[in-house]
Amino acid sequence: MLRVAIAGASGYTGFELLRILCAHPSVKVSTITSRQQKGQRIDDFYPAFKRHCDLVFEETDPERLAASSDLVFTALPHQASMDIIPGLLERGVRVVDLSADYRLRDPEVYGKWYSKHRTPELLKEAVYGLPEFYREKIRSARLVANPGCYPTSVILAMAPMLSRGLVDPETIIADSKSGVSGAGRGLDLGLHFCEVNEGFKAYKVAEHRHTPEIEQELGVFAGRPVTINFTPHLVPMSRGILSTVYSNLKPGVGALDVEEAFRNCFGNELFVRLCAPNQLPTTLQVRGSNYCDLGWKVDERTRRLIVTSVIDNLTRGASGQAVCNMNIMCGLPEDDGLKDVPWQP
Amino acid sequence: MLRVAIAGASGYTGFELLRILCAHPSVKVSTITSRQQKGQRIDDFYPAFKRHCDLVFEETDPERLAASSDLVFTALPHQASMDIIPGLLERGVRVVDLSADYRLRDPEVYGKWYSKHRTPELLKEAVYGLPEFYREKIRSARLVANPGCYPTSVILAMAPMLSRGLVDPETIIADSKSGVSGAGRGLDLGLHFCEVNEGFKAYKVAEHRHTPEIEQELGVFAGRPVTINFTPHLVPMSRGILSTVYSNLKPGVGALDVEEAFRNCFGNELFVRLCAPNQLPTTLQVRGSNYCDLGWKVDERTRRLIVTSVIDNLTRGASGQAVCNMNIMCGLPEDDGLKDVPWQP
Amino acid sequence: MLRVAIAGASGYTGFELLRILCAHPSVKVSTITSRQQKGQRIDDFYPAFKRHCDLVFEETDPERLAASSDLVFTALPHQASMDIIPGLLERGVRVVDLSADYRLRDPEVYGKWYSKHRTPELLKEAVYGLPEFYREKIRSARLVANPGCYPTSVILAMAPMLSRGLVDPETIIADSKSGVSGAGRGLDLGLHFCEVNEGFKAYKVAEHRHTPEIEQELGVFAGRPVTINFTPHLVPMSRGILSTVYSNLKPGVGALDVEEAFRNCFGNELFVRLCAPNQLPTTLQVRGSNYCDLGWKVDERTRRLIVTSVIDNLTRGASGQAVCNMNIMCGLPEDDGLKDVPWQP
Amino acid sequence: MLRVAIAGASGYTGFELLRILCAHPSVKVSTITSRQQKGQRIDDFYPAFKRHCDLVFEETDPERLAASSDLVFTALPHQASMDIIPGLLERGVRVVDLSADYRLRDPEVYGKWYSKHRTPELLKEAVYGLPEFYREKIRSARLVANPGCYPTSVILAMAPMLSRGLVDPETIIADSKSGVSGAGRGLDLGLHFCEVNEGFKAYKVAEHRHTPEIEQELGVFAGRPVTINFTPHLVPMSRGILSTVYSNLKPGVGALDVEEAFRNCFGNELFVRLCAPNQLPTTLQVRGSNYCDLGWKVDERTRRLIVTSVIDNLTRGASGQAVCNMNIMCGLPEDDGLKDVPWQP
Repeated sequence: MLRVAIAGASGYTGFELLRILCAHPSVKVSTITSRQQKGQRIDDFYPAFKRHCDLVFEETDPERLAASSDLVFTALPHQASMDIIPGLLERGVRVVDLSADYRLRDPEVYGKWYSKHRTPELLKEAVYGLPEFYREKIRSARLVANPGCYPTSVILAMAPMLSRGLVDPETIIADSKSGVSGAGRGLDLGLHFCEVNEGFKAYKVAEHRHTPEIEQELGVFAGRPVTINFTPHLVPMSRGILSTVYSNLKPGVGALDVEEAFRNCFGNELFVRLCAPNQLPTTLQVRGSNYCDLGWKVDERTRRLIVTSVIDNLTRGASGQAVCNMNIMCGLPEDDGLKDVPWQP
Repeated sequence: MLRVAIAGASGYTGFELLRILCAHPSVKVSTITSRQQKGQRIDDFYPAFKRHCDLVFEETDPERLAASSDLVFTALPHQASMDIIPGLLERGVRVVDLSADYRLRDPEVYGKWYSKHRTPELLKEAVYGLPEFYREKIRSARLVANPGCYPTSVILAMAPMLSRGLVDPETIIADSKSGVSGAGRGLDLGLHFCEVNEGFKAYKVAEHRHTPEIEQELGVFAGRPVTINFTPHLVPMSRGILSTVYSNLKPGVGALDVEEAFRNCFGNELFVRLCAPNQLPTTLQVRGSNYCDLGWKVDERTRRLIVTSVIDNLTRGASGQAVCNMNIMCGLPEDDGLKDVPWQP
Repeated sequence: MLRVAIAGASGYTGFELLRILCAHPSVKVSTITSRQQKGQRIDDFYPAFKRHCDLVFEETDPERLAASSDLVFTALPHQASMDIIPGLLERGVRVVDLSADYRLRDPEVYGKWYSKHRTPELLKEAVYGLPEFYREKIRSARLVANPGCYPTSVILAMAPMLSRGLVDPETIIADSKSGVSGAGRGLDLGLHFCEVNEGFKAYKVAEHRHTPEIEQELGVFAGRPVTINFTPHLVPMSRGILSTVYSNLKPGVGALDVEEAFRNCFGNELFVRLCAPNQLPTTLQVRGSNYCDLGWKVDERTRRLIVTSVIDNLTRGASGQAVCNMNIMCGLPEDDGLKDVPWQP
Repeated sequence: MLRVAIAGASGYTGFELLRILCAHPSVKVSTITSRQQKGQRIDDFYPAFKRHCDLVFEETDPERLAASSDLVFTALPHQASMDIIPGLLERGVRVVDLSADYRLRDPEVYGKWYSKHRTPELLKEAVYGLPEFYREKIRSARLVANPGCYPTSVILAMAPMLSRGLVDPETIIADSKSGVSGAGRGLDLGLHFCEVNEGFKAYKVAEHRHTPEIEQELGVFAGRPVTINFTPHLVPMSRGILSTVYSNLKPGVGALDVEEAFRNCFGNELFVRLCAPNQLPTTLQVRGSNYCDLGWKVDERTRRLIVTSVIDNLTRGASGQAVCNMNIMCGLPEDDGLKDVPWQP
């Protein structure tokens, strides 16, 4: 059995990691940590875990984590991850980091959107954990930077188009909508039930930190720098992201080219499902699963492509994808622990 | 007192009209009609109306409607409106039509998106009922075509930009999100609570019938034909529309130009409220009211303008705007019956 | 115009008071106070108020309040109300108190369920503000204790039965369910959208502080002390309370006796509506209004009466009832400011 | 591998059965039937199933079902079940029936609450499928009547109290609240999102068909006939039932007796979890699982016991319990296919 730990296990991402790992056939969770909940049992904190896990939250200490585990998931706030990860790697533990600290390859970009990076040398080594595109590198990585929730939904929608040159990279607009769990479990008036219910809104327009992450990856597929508009919105629901991604088709490109590009790119992928022509996905059909479901439409009137991409923000957008990365790193089947049918209704 | 009737009063739009009119200081509702609910008392059908209205649904008959009322609101499905409106106008009754039948000035466009128009001669006379722009024509109109819910939110967001030439009309993308009441009260599996809850989705992408209506009006302000992308989405909430509208800024145009355009255009308008800089509206802050609240952001990285526009789809997007049109037609203060503070939470 | 102030105006109850008073024909709101929001404009804090109110939150100071107003609504936490109310009364200002501080006539009961009462002498004078039963006393009161939300729903359901001796007072069980706004706008993990959504629960079973308030009033109608079970639950919705109240029918009492008792007691009341036989109310049909709608069923198998009572917890359960009390105190029509049709959907 | 079929697989109960069975280690689903969806692929009808199941809905024919399966789940409306089950049993197929047709042992009671029973001879043989109490009989049963959702929640709350004589059976009141999926997937105005959202209500008070089922089973534990009040309510959420069950404690019975009774009865049960003292469960903590979580409070003021019981209505209240029954019937571990951690948030 693989021994794994979760650093920062008290939030929704930590819950989801532990939920998946409790049912994973080849994993034993050895340690969970939380500064705030230190000393408390997980099944007192989250009664859902009764009968499944009775671990006690510990202090987040690299030495103890390294002693008890072969691989650590760091589900800490950004900046806190980079405080602990070097110590883990030094002790020979592999890491899947769910924070944003190692997603951006350029420390200057990180500095501009977040703050000064304190371990820039590790950025060269970190692998961006989007399995469909970086599977080989993930296999041997010591440090995998698990993608952000919004970026996962947008990159999967656009990469096949850009790598085949079907759309103009300067025209990409990603209009994304997320359920409330994406904002975490912290206390915030904006997350109070009565403020969210019946209150749909955009936030951080043109300044959300997932923007450079999306641009970095789309730039890889376009073969040149890409600048996009990314607009996140908050939806009165608990889970799910839907991104509506617009781009201008290159001259001569038609609906069949788009479909072929999606089928070539994702036809053999376990965790991407393509909608039938003229079908569009809802967040409900992927809830609780690691799927990204993609639907699209070519608008000949405007010569634009519109792709809608749905994921569960906590599963494919965070913890499910992290487990998938662990599976790849450890030579396990990619879908171990991730075989459930999505939850409906 | 003005005597008014509501033809097609059993749906959510009809409810909202009656709710507003029950508290209107200068109006008496004389007749309500509904084919399906004929013979039933409104306060049996909707217990909310007990003590406020005890009218009985009647058959929709132009002669009876004309005999009992000075003005009729037609809240019927499209095609059904054009069956009854000529008979009302002949009998000297003025009409505010909440269907789509008289919104498109070109019968061929109507034929392409809906079906063959049977009274094309009335299209010339009908006035598009967006008070901010057509107030003078509404005043003397016999037939006002009340705007669609999505178009109201998009046109108010873009008209000031286009009339001043601040953005490129060929780059407009309207990504709109609506609460469920916009889909009406009919039986439909897609509106079942368990299908909507936690299920955010896009629908009718690149083929929604509000597209030509938006294009027609934006074309007026641009001074030339405009083709846009319009993408509607269904939000798990009862009321509210938020439209996120993207467009490319013309060279040299900056944030101050945008703000000035909005202030010049709407500074004196009763029912448009502009957010403070860097503020973005939520649907909750306009619920139950006739307001359209506008927020925006200039993204210098991409040289795009992003406007977010919120309305209550049943009030400003339908019945509130219809009452406002009635007020203008009848020389009443524009906000009679529409003075309520939005409902929160 | 009556000059009124709201002490503690930043919560949902304060919002609702101000929303109603903004449209009240005979009132001018002179002052709003809030310790936390002091110095902020209400329409910055709640954008819904833009164009309706531009007051600035002030410190809660009895002298300033008395100088600017004829009547003060105190929407403060319990204990804070009793700090300020004596000073207001001394200065000749009348008070409607929305806290629990003056609802219990016996200071020992208050001491047991809350904490030591510091102004017990005022308890004798305070009038319990349930208009259907205390209208005459309210008229001349200096200090009205506005009823709690749950007690309003339960007392209206049971008082007619007890005053006519139709049920056994020792068998009353009130199983109540409330929307989330009843818990206020404070930060609390239990009110986070993701904890409430799909999470129905009971809380404070057999220990909620509204229990002695309900027992006090039911005791008045029964003519002897009454002890009940009261169980509150949290419903994933913003507004509304439904109380299901059980009691054993006295021998010989039948459905017609129950109906007659309700009709005799409430037949002429503006703000109580009785359902037709075999109809049961939903919280939606009273939302945003001051109504209490009552439905009931006699179960001959068990010889129990089941009454379901619905109110809007913020309107009839707090601010609407407070305005109604103000109207009565000031000789205004009881429904001034309270004439709106309930909000649906 | 056990070959199983689902008759009536297109509703929420059928979805949940198939979801669980797709991940069951010892089962292969051979056939799914649906009159309405005949000929359609399940993963076209429910896109969530893509990659998990590609069966096509067939006609519900006993002969074909018997040929393809060792055990059949009948998830049909009541009356339809009794049309098909005799033919299945004759052909040597075992049946878990999720309808109400074989739950009531007395055909006269069935006749009174439902309609005339057409196969009363089978009632003697059918076993009520509540594993905690009927495990041994289930093991060898040909026909298991899977309990109703509400009865499961109420019986588990009360059986230990009645079998030990701790409470007075004549005083039981079950006030139950259910999410909307319990009402099925059919078209019904009362299930429209806008009618449910913010609309909490009671329904079928004193006449719901689960009443005699609860009474029958509670009577078994009480050792004498029991008559109760059962009041169902509809909660604006998709999944979950919470039942609040009241009863009068017998003289001398205290909190420790109650706790001991629960621990003795359920301490070794896989699928019942007892809350810590003073903790009360929420529906969220059992969502998607087969657990029933129980919390309780003794109110010494009224000498009443209040138990709150939560289940997922589709899992423990229907399909999860049905799979558990299948496991027992077939000698498999009781929790095969039912090991998932509940879904949160």
